[in-house]
Amino acid sequence: MKKISAEDILSYDKRFRTNLINTVTGFKSVSLIASVNTQGETNLAIFSQIIHVGANPPLLGILFRPHTVVRHTLENILSTAEFTINHISSEILRQAHHTSARWEQSEFEACGLTPDFGTAVCAPYVRESSVQIGCKLVERQDIQANGTVLIIGQIVEIRLPDNIVHDDGFIDLEMAGSLCALGLDSYHNTTRVARLSYAKPDSQPEEI
Amino acid sequence: MKKISAEDILSYDKRFRTNLINTVTGFKSVSLIASVNTQGETNLAIFSQIIHVGANPPLLGILFRPHTVVRHTLENILSTAEFTINHISSEILRQAHHTSARWEQSEFEACGLTPDFGTAVCAPYVRESSVQIGCKLVERQDIQANGTVLIIGQIVEIRLPDNIVHDDGFIDLEMAGSLCALGLDSYHNTTRVARLSYAKPDSQPEEI
Repeated sequence: MKKISAEDILSYDKRFRTNLINTVTGFKSVSLIASVNTQGETNLAIFSQIIHVGANPPLLGILFRPHTVVRHTLENILSTAEFTINHISSEILRQAHHTSARWEQSEFEACGLTPDFGTAVCAPYVRESSVQIGCKLVERQDIQANGTVLIIGQIVEIRLPDNIVHDDGFIDLEMAGSLCALGLDSYHNTTRVARLSYAKPDSQPEEI
Repeated sequence: MKKISAEDILSYDKRFRTNLINTVTGFKSVSLIASVNTQGETNLAIFSQIIHVGANPPLLGILFRPHTVVRHTLENILSTAEFTINHISSEILRQAHHTSARWEQSEFEACGLTPDFGTAVCAPYVRESSVQIGCKLVERQDIQANGTVLIIGQIVEIRLPDNIVHDDGFIDLEMAGSLCALGLDSYHNTTRVARLSYAKPDSQPEEI
């Protein structure tokens, strides 16, 4: 085993440290966040910092880098209080990744993805996405340690293929083709190893 | 496409809603968090709510459910300010999942995993884990919307096989065998689809 110390981490060049620390925490969800500004102009951006926060009420969180430069997605969410989260499959991976370039026009148009407006939120969904989540802003927390901003959103609508929801509510995201991410630029398919039973001291976990 | 409204979500029975909302945000990292209490007794618990927060300083976050019942890991972190995060591979998946049962003794002993004490932090690593991260507590944020607690930790040591770190710092977690999770109980291997170049408006993303 190689040991990397706190001093080693600080001594690395920026690119090496960024890749190392972005990958060491493991695989992440990756989605497209769609929003509109107060003029109704759409924005679309790829994010891998979206987490589950709670089921009742249904809450999720998005961690944004420090708000020191223009961050359209964060600014749109703060001004309109609504946004959508849209899963990414292999079929739209390159378009999704391309949204992170510095575009002058809407990333929908620039990257060849289709805005699909519903009625639950003002922001559009991504038509090509197999799992779409409409959200309303409920809370903002500023992380003191490095200026990142945690946005808490409440889920107000979910749009997805009917056949991927199991009888117990579990969504089969492998059937949906949803990818996960590692670090800044690596995208992965998944293969289930096991779904395990609720753990009890008097028995071994079993596959369910 | 099936549309699930905010009213639908609230009307579901608890188990269905819990599975649905825990899976809809996508795949997550999954790790074992090891800690000790002020008497030096070890604790080990499986967590899928660990996120990257920043690379310089190297920070990560853990989201804990509301602190309304005994939560040994959170209490140990708040009292000793140190903990370790240890990746999970298929070889130790069942032991790792079994840590979530209500044990009277240390989960290391109960589940057959080995505490491995280093010098950087007081909490042990999990010897059977291929990627081990030592952390110190730097910040606590309480989420008002549902009482969850976000703990920010600074990475002070990383222990991992030398051959899984690429020249640019990217850690090949597929080579390490690190799993990811979906929902409360599903565990997955990954297969890389592509690592894509930095996105620019004037060219298509390419594999790197």
